Amino acid sequence: MTVAIDRNHSAIALPPDRNLVTIAHEIANHLSHTTHQRDAAAGIPNQEIQSLKASGLLSLMVPQAYDGTGASWLEAMDIVKILAQADSSAAQLYGYHLLLSVVPHLIGTAEQAAHTYRETAQHNLFWANAINTRDMRLTLEPDADGWRASGVKTFCTGAVVSDRLICAATQLGNPLPAMFVIPADRPGLTYNHDWEVLGQRRTASGSFTFANVRVEAAEILGPPPNLESAFPTILGVGGLLVLSSIFLGIAEGALATSLTYTQTQARPWETAKVEKATDDPYTLRRYGELWAQLQGAIACTQQATTQFQQAWEKGQALTHEERGEVAIAAAAAKALSIQIGLAITNQMFDLMGARSVTNQYGFDLYWRNLRTLTLHDPLDYKLCDIGNWVVNGTAPVPSSYA
Amino acid sequence: MTVAIDRNHSAIALPPDRNLVTIAHEIANHLSHTTHQRDAAAGIPNQEIQSLKASGLLSLMVPQAYDGTGASWLEAMDIVKILAQADSSAAQLYGYHLLLSVVPHLIGTAEQAAHTYRETAQHNLFWANAINTRDMRLTLEPDADGWRASGVKTFCTGAVVSDRLICAATQLGNPLPAMFVIPADRPGLTYNHDWEVLGQRRTASGSFTFANVRVEAAEILGPPPNLESAFPTILGVGGLLVLSSIFLGIAEGALATSLTYTQTQARPWETAKVEKATDDPYTLRRYGELWAQLQGAIACTQQATTQFQQAWEKGQALTHEERGEVAIAAAAAKALSIQIGLAITNQMFDLMGARSVTNQYGFDLYWRNLRTLTLHDPLDYKLCDIGNWVVNGTAPVPSSYA
Amino acid sequence: MTVAIDRNHSAIALPPDRNLVTIAHEIANHLSHTTHQRDAAAGIPNQEIQSLKASGLLSLMVPQAYDGTGASWLEAMDIVKILAQADSSAAQLYGYHLLLSVVPHLIGTAEQAAHTYRETAQHNLFWANAINTRDMRLTLEPDADGWRASGVKTFCTGAVVSDRLICAATQLGNPLPAMFVIPADRPGLTYNHDWEVLGQRRTASGSFTFANVRVEAAEILGPPPNLESAFPTILGVGGLLVLSSIFLGIAEGALATSLTYTQTQARPWETAKVEKATDDPYTLRRYGELWAQLQGAIACTQQATTQFQQAWEKGQALTHEERGEVAIAAAAAKALSIQIGLAITNQMFDLMGARSVTNQYGFDLYWRNLRTLTLHDPLDYKLCDIGNWVVNGTAPVPSSYA
Amino acid sequence: MTVAIDRNHSAIALPPDRNLVTIAHEIANHLSHTTHQRDAAAGIPNQEIQSLKASGLLSLMVPQAYDGTGASWLEAMDIVKILAQADSSAAQLYGYHLLLSVVPHLIGTAEQAAHTYRETAQHNLFWANAINTRDMRLTLEPDADGWRASGVKTFCTGAVVSDRLICAATQLGNPLPAMFVIPADRPGLTYNHDWEVLGQRRTASGSFTFANVRVEAAEILGPPPNLESAFPTILGVGGLLVLSSIFLGIAEGALATSLTYTQTQARPWETAKVEKATDDPYTLRRYGELWAQLQGAIACTQQATTQFQQAWEKGQALTHEERGEVAIAAAAAKALSIQIGLAITNQMFDLMGARSVTNQYGFDLYWRNLRTLTLHDPLDYKLCDIGNWVVNGTAPVPSSYA
Repeated sequence: MTVAIDRNHSAIALPPDRNLVTIAHEIANHLSHTTHQRDAAAGIPNQEIQSLKASGLLSLMVPQAYDGTGASWLEAMDIVKILAQADSSAAQLYGYHLLLSVVPHLIGTAEQAAHTYRETAQHNLFWANAINTRDMRLTLEPDADGWRASGVKTFCTGAVVSDRLICAATQLGNPLPAMFVIPADRPGLTYNHDWEVLGQRRTASGSFTFANVRVEAAEILGPPPNLESAFPTILGVGGLLVLSSIFLGIAEGALATSLTYTQTQARPWETAKVEKATDDPYTLRRYGELWAQLQGAIACTQQATTQFQQAWEKGQALTHEERGEVAIAAAAAKALSIQIGLAITNQMFDLMGARSVTNQYGFDLYWRNLRTLTLHDPLDYKLCDIGNWVVNGTAPVPSSYA
Repeated sequence: MTVAIDRNHSAIALPPDRNLVTIAHEIANHLSHTTHQRDAAAGIPNQEIQSLKASGLLSLMVPQAYDGTGASWLEAMDIVKILAQADSSAAQLYGYHLLLSVVPHLIGTAEQAAHTYRETAQHNLFWANAINTRDMRLTLEPDADGWRASGVKTFCTGAVVSDRLICAATQLGNPLPAMFVIPADRPGLTYNHDWEVLGQRRTASGSFTFANVRVEAAEILGPPPNLESAFPTILGVGGLLVLSSIFLGIAEGALATSLTYTQTQARPWETAKVEKATDDPYTLRRYGELWAQLQGAIACTQQATTQFQQAWEKGQALTHEERGEVAIAAAAAKALSIQIGLAITNQMFDLMGARSVTNQYGFDLYWRNLRTLTLHDPLDYKLCDIGNWVVNGTAPVPSSYA
Repeated sequence: MTVAIDRNHSAIALPPDRNLVTIAHEIANHLSHTTHQRDAAAGIPNQEIQSLKASGLLSLMVPQAYDGTGASWLEAMDIVKILAQADSSAAQLYGYHLLLSVVPHLIGTAEQAAHTYRETAQHNLFWANAINTRDMRLTLEPDADGWRASGVKTFCTGAVVSDRLICAATQLGNPLPAMFVIPADRPGLTYNHDWEVLGQRRTASGSFTFANVRVEAAEILGPPPNLESAFPTILGVGGLLVLSSIFLGIAEGALATSLTYTQTQARPWETAKVEKATDDPYTLRRYGELWAQLQGAIACTQQATTQFQQAWEKGQALTHEERGEVAIAAAAAKALSIQIGLAITNQMFDLMGARSVTNQYGFDLYWRNLRTLTLHDPLDYKLCDIGNWVVNGTAPVPSSYA
Repeated sequence: MTVAIDRNHSAIALPPDRNLVTIAHEIANHLSHTTHQRDAAAGIPNQEIQSLKASGLLSLMVPQAYDGTGASWLEAMDIVKILAQADSSAAQLYGYHLLLSVVPHLIGTAEQAAHTYRETAQHNLFWANAINTRDMRLTLEPDADGWRASGVKTFCTGAVVSDRLICAATQLGNPLPAMFVIPADRPGLTYNHDWEVLGQRRTASGSFTFANVRVEAAEILGPPPNLESAFPTILGVGGLLVLSSIFLGIAEGALATSLTYTQTQARPWETAKVEKATDDPYTLRRYGELWAQLQGAIACTQQATTQFQQAWEKGQALTHEERGEVAIAAAAAKALSIQIGLAITNQMFDLMGARSVTNQYGFDLYWRNLRTLTLHDPLDYKLCDIGNWVVNGTAPVPSSYA
């Protein structure tokens, strides 16, 4: 990574002749050298954010009119997947950033959208969140000419290394949470360094305490231009696709790692009738089945992402029925990605054999990351959502999970 | 079906304003009224061939230059799938016909290709085969200025109702079979009416006896223009995609049938805590899971078909490596289609409950057809082929199965 | 079968030196010669009942004090399984008979139990039922000094060939059905010959119409000696075990059939690197996996049957908690038997290959019988019952399904 | 644990009134308090061996004639399973010890058997091994009146904390390895502290270097009394059962842990229509299915252990066919245990939800231990062995894996 980085948040424009996928592979390759050490250390993902900032990829979803890359969601998800092959924590940080960087466009006023797009590109901003809608302890109360946010929010992925923070807070007398954007260095914000978990250990997804944090009226997002449109609710669908892309990246990374081992280190079993592990009929069949199912999940995710891009392009014209359709496609993609991901991250050990569990390899990282992130919301209810649409034509109620 | 049909094999041009998919749905709908009766009767698929001839779809793959439709393989596979939703025997007859109608283009001389394309369009010909490469009892021997074919060939799907028959025969001193095309009414050909099986009962896939059947030298296909190209071997890949499309059609048909039953007839179980079967959490989850996996198989098959179309368009320039890649994609698609097809055709009964096994419904037809046709070649070896490509980069040896 | 049979219902004592299992295998072997023909004919299982009557096995569960065999439930379930290997319709008729022959012991007075045991042994009676608790159209109303039963009952397995019929009828003002026993030739009973289904076709499980059928007061079962005991509710558990035993018998029969085919007729696939189908690594692995899982289901069913025997021996002392425990064990056994049964009856075709679907074999009979009978009640709710016991310690509400 | 322990290896007799299962639960409970800390530390299992020695359970398989407990293998496997519920490393150490403590009985002379049994009971000896037959670098060469062993052996589970070590060494001119027993403090033995792996971290299963280690002629085991008998080869079958018992213990431990969490901490998902996580239909069904399959694996393992006990009791009379039969039963038990174990240790997280991955719980320990130990030998080849017996009647070649 030789692109110069300026700590003062100045824009990092993508060199005009650089291919996005190439850049993604470069960061992935760069991160891959230290993935295991950073996982072991857990802690704060400063290096990752530095790499992402240096890459020029932070303004990927900012329209070109605002000096961003103006990429499509297919390109975005592809980059997320490539990062996840090497480092799924970094991929989650990046994928969430992409989604959050468009939130003002979704639920804010036109001015808020324009403003945040512009500053993201101009200052190479990294976005994170304190949204977790299942934790309702963060409240927003009026205070003189502005507001005050107080309380705690869990699962604030990447917030501690972010520039901008999108928050959801409970408001008295309003069933819906208020959504607001604040600079991450706003006084009163404290990260609690409590992200000590099995996987995705470098996402800094611990809790934040808000001690009487000032929120300006203009920082509260909305109202969006069209209250009838389904467009403002589409973030949850993007979330499904980011997760699916990360799961696929982990699965691909695990399968590639396993393959290299099989090709270079594995020995045939003593009762096998073959000379080389790469000729073992059971090994070949297992790789074949896992690979085939992986292709199914990849193809499904790509189709759902294409549908998502179409929905995105409809903007305010997006209907709730169209939103339901893409939400179901994304849910199916996520379900398939989970299932094949768990199969691969478990069976890779069967494919490599008894010696593959030595710590020097650390091959369990794939399973740990996948198992952790696939608990984001329950697979059973995602499948139920799909079934409810198939059987009753009922779309899931829009949320950050559906 | 109001398109006039002429028994004298004259061309049935597609009305210029008709949509292929619409036509396919019309035939499927037409056939669906008698699918169960025809299955029960088994026997000779005269009605099916009549419908297909009347549809104008027989020259689908004939280039427009030869007065055919010049459709893409994506359109072709979609039509096969639509037919299979209603009648998988008819879908197999039609899918095989499409493949066989391009065989002279693949392995024949340029003249043979042109000639057969032209006569297919002009005379609305239906193609079938006596190829089964695992049965080597049909031999071809020189005879004066031509040749004589003698022996027996099994699995001659649709040959008894065909206009043109592509045959594979063993030749003395040649490890490869000779491929030739003859009119199906050539003297010496006898269908043995021995297709008494579990499913795909209306495909007339029994054996043919060749009693000293005359074969003209010009009827022996080849040599193709470029002996180095992988193009002549691509038929087997098309076969995988036709099978995959039929499996998907069966699965879709079964799922749709099951859905209608759930929506209109099923009752909640007595310990369920819901009022309607359509609210049952297990029912919804099962539909969700089956539907999601089906989307994976569909997406995979569409991608493989797109790759196949690209390979097709490369023609003589197609390399063996490119051929291997699309063969693997098609194998993966077929594997996924088998797996979800078996899951749906079994679990549809769980979804409908105890009363769904009454004979008036005949819902087992989906399983019988799928179980029969999915035995075409062993799934385990298809997965092994995929694994061998993933692990060793080795493409399957081209055959009618790979 | 050389044991003499007397049409006038006189006792057929088991020869003292005959082994029950040997007899069961003899009947199974005898039936196996005509299983496919009888399945094709469907209709009334007269031959089966004749064989069962001639076997001396009808009074298997009648205590020796009443001149019965006094066998254990382990012996009973073993015989059911052996019959099901050859003919699962006959096995269902027999298994249901065994359960029904002890119903007066469970829910009747001591006198009713003694009376029916005695007459079963003395007259070699075959028992069947008109119980289906989900169909509440059969009503019982007082009439002079007795009662009248009117209405329709579905799923009256074997009733048309029975000697005694246990019926469940709705009573005005009583939430629980009345259970009564009548001779099957009681005037007013009509079998509707409406059992036209996918499998278990020779069980005559159609509906019965009761036209003002006389029921004597003494024929209404009960009250049982101890209203606090769980003993009267144990029939449903026996039902789970009979079903499980039938499923296992079908699975064993299917696996044995498949094995013979593999050993004598199967050919190795053309890309296999083995000379014989019996050396194929995928074939061996599949047989290994199916066989292992089958052993798990068998072992589970045997343990549950042992627990059931213990519960049986406790008689009136049986507590509801003990009843719950054995119900759960039986539910688990049934669930495992369904899952392995479906796996075997589907995969046996993969193990045999493309030619195994010819009608002369009729190998689909295993799947048809299993798929039909496994719909008896939903697997999902059986698993839910088990989970509710595991998680909450809550036993299923006793019923004919749990 | 109040039983007094004497560091000088004097006998620890079981108090006559103590129940073996109770003692096992006490050790398990004792170990459970520190399982996670010891796993984190890895290193040498001194505490575990101290607990095992103090328990009086080391001479479990020593016949009562030699002052041992003379327990059955059913009791032995039950204790192994109980230990594994709490600490599968300790269970492996103990299970291997039990097997190794009978090796001189299997392959030694009658005198060697008597001697080692007697000293095991008298001195409360802990046994371990340096056998790994896939690593042939340890050689045995004659040296004056005795022998010298040199080289390296991997996977020497527990050897560093053992009293007696059974070793397998390559001999010049002999295709079979020599087996010998030496005191673990014999000069020249060095443990290489190289067991840094994913799971079973407290088994000290690293490699040993033998530097010209003296072996007395009398320490070389054999010949056994009857060279025709299959009895000397039965160790491998016991190994399958020990592994199966450990897998089941892990699965039971994981399921119990998950249950407690579900019952006390889990919250219903936000779209669930239930008040409590313990009423969730998907949760109940999953627990039901996992529990049912676990019962199948348990029942299978118990039956195989019963068969193993019978084979054990046959002693020298054991035929190779009988040995094959129990080997297959044990292989099936192991296969089922692996499959359900992997299902439970993965799905326990689905059952507990997103917060279950926090490090304070360390619930991944179950998966890490199971995944590591289930790689001991490939499941695919175990299933192939079973299939080869089912299809061809061929028993696996006796080895330490079969």
